Amino acid sequence: MEACVITIGNEILKGRTVNTNAAHIGKFLTTRGYEVTRGLTVKDDLDDIKWAIDNTNGFYDLIITTGGLGPTFDDMTVAGVARALNIELVEDTDTLRELKERYVRLGMELTTERLKLALIPRGATAIKNKVGAAPGIWISGSKSKILILPGVPREMEAILESAGSLLSNDSRYYFEETRHLEGVMESSMAPAVNRLMEKMSGRVYIKSHPLKSETNHPEIDIEVSAYAETAKEAEDIVRKTIGELLDEASRVRRNH
Amino acid sequence: MEACVITIGNEILKGRTVNTNAAHIGKFLTTRGYEVTRGLTVKDDLDDIKWAIDNTNGFYDLIITTGGLGPTFDDMTVAGVARALNIELVEDTDTLRELKERYVRLGMELTTERLKLALIPRGATAIKNKVGAAPGIWISGSKSKILILPGVPREMEAILESAGSLLSNDSRYYFEETRHLEGVMESSMAPAVNRLMEKMSGRVYIKSHPLKSETNHPEIDIEVSAYAETAKEAEDIVRKTIGELLDEASRVRRNH
Repeated sequence: MEACVITIGNEILKGRTVNTNAAHIGKFLTTRGYEVTRGLTVKDDLDDIKWAIDNTNGFYDLIITTGGLGPTFDDMTVAGVARALNIELVEDTDTLRELKERYVRLGMELTTERLKLALIPRGATAIKNKVGAAPGIWISGSKSKILILPGVPREMEAILESAGSLLSNDSRYYFEETRHLEGVMESSMAPAVNRLMEKMSGRVYIKSHPLKSETNHPEIDIEVSAYAETAKEAEDIVRKTIGELLDEASRVRRNH
Repeated sequence: MEACVITIGNEILKGRTVNTNAAHIGKFLTTRGYEVTRGLTVKDDLDDIKWAIDNTNGFYDLIITTGGLGPTFDDMTVAGVARALNIELVEDTDTLRELKERYVRLGMELTTERLKLALIPRGATAIKNKVGAAPGIWISGSKSKILILPGVPREMEAILESAGSLLSNDSRYYFEETRHLEGVMESSMAPAVNRLMEKMSGRVYIKSHPLKSETNHPEIDIEVSAYAETAKEAEDIVRKTIGELLDEASRVRRNH
């Protein structure tokens, strides 16, 4: 089950905002057995959003977009996705009712800009936003399933949580564990990492993260992860590999 | 001057690491007059890295990659870029000498994995890494200019700083200013934002960032930015636009 995360927003490209949303979504999907194999960031631009969907739809099991769902001029994710899929936008009755209630409650007018938040591609499902105004949108009829989320982190996280059951994946399990190692350098562990990855021929993934530059007091985190058909199998593969890495680390320390 | 930032690393896709590098590079380029128009994140995989270069080379003035320069099995950025450009890898004499000195100083062996750090595409320039072992790489002979940076933030930042003069851009200046507004909602400001952006027909960019969900005590940041041929012109456009937005905010508050 492969997934692609598309982030929409000039502020991300400019570095005004750090893309914590992509990390949150990546973690959410990985722990549910998905492998996130691509990330894209595009501008708040209709053509760019359409380009992102055109170039990912059908290549992944799941596409999640985040950003561009607000009421302003440059919030055009829904229009861009709909254009890419060639589906017209329609007013979602439930969302419209909620928007009316919301703005009446706040004593504010339901302007054209606010009404935009009720538009979803025909056949899609709005996912209620318990935190803000713009709903999430779930499209299951396209080549890839597509989940559209807002960019405000609190709202994005809440809708992603609500959408959890739509994203369930019973066929693949993920397990990872990270060990902190002192007194061994990334480059000293590299031959063993390479040998173990080859031996396990793609069933396990090992990544070392140097926490300091290489010195005589190096520290690294070694992350070991695996996908498997059962949760237990994924965990077994990881634990066995960690055992071998720890043996290797002791050898490296002794020889130095 | 358009730029694309390519981040290489499974840990980013999985959400283990937040992509602060892309934000740092985005800010660095934006303040130097570049417009970062695309971001890609790909796995530590030779084909995926090649794909990223194949699909961006020639479409941007500048491509910056970050990640995948270490000594381990899955650090394959240099090989991937070289394969995409169809250029062989050669040993960089200066880097090789520095690596030898480095590992002699640390009392460590110069293994095959460590020697890999001296390989650069023929015709490229190594940019000394003052903080770690892997140098940056500057390729100016390809359709897009390509700067290859490590993924460790301290090392990436140091090399980017050193590469500043290679990235200078005298033809385009950028100015931005952000104002914090209280008591107006994003959706209340939206009509004025739309009107101003249309009036300035692409010369100014206005983005509102709601800091809280819409309530009776809303707070937003309004960011106004412009590119222009002189620094002064960019600043003038931004200041004039901010003036109009502040007037509008007062109107909105009065009418509410």
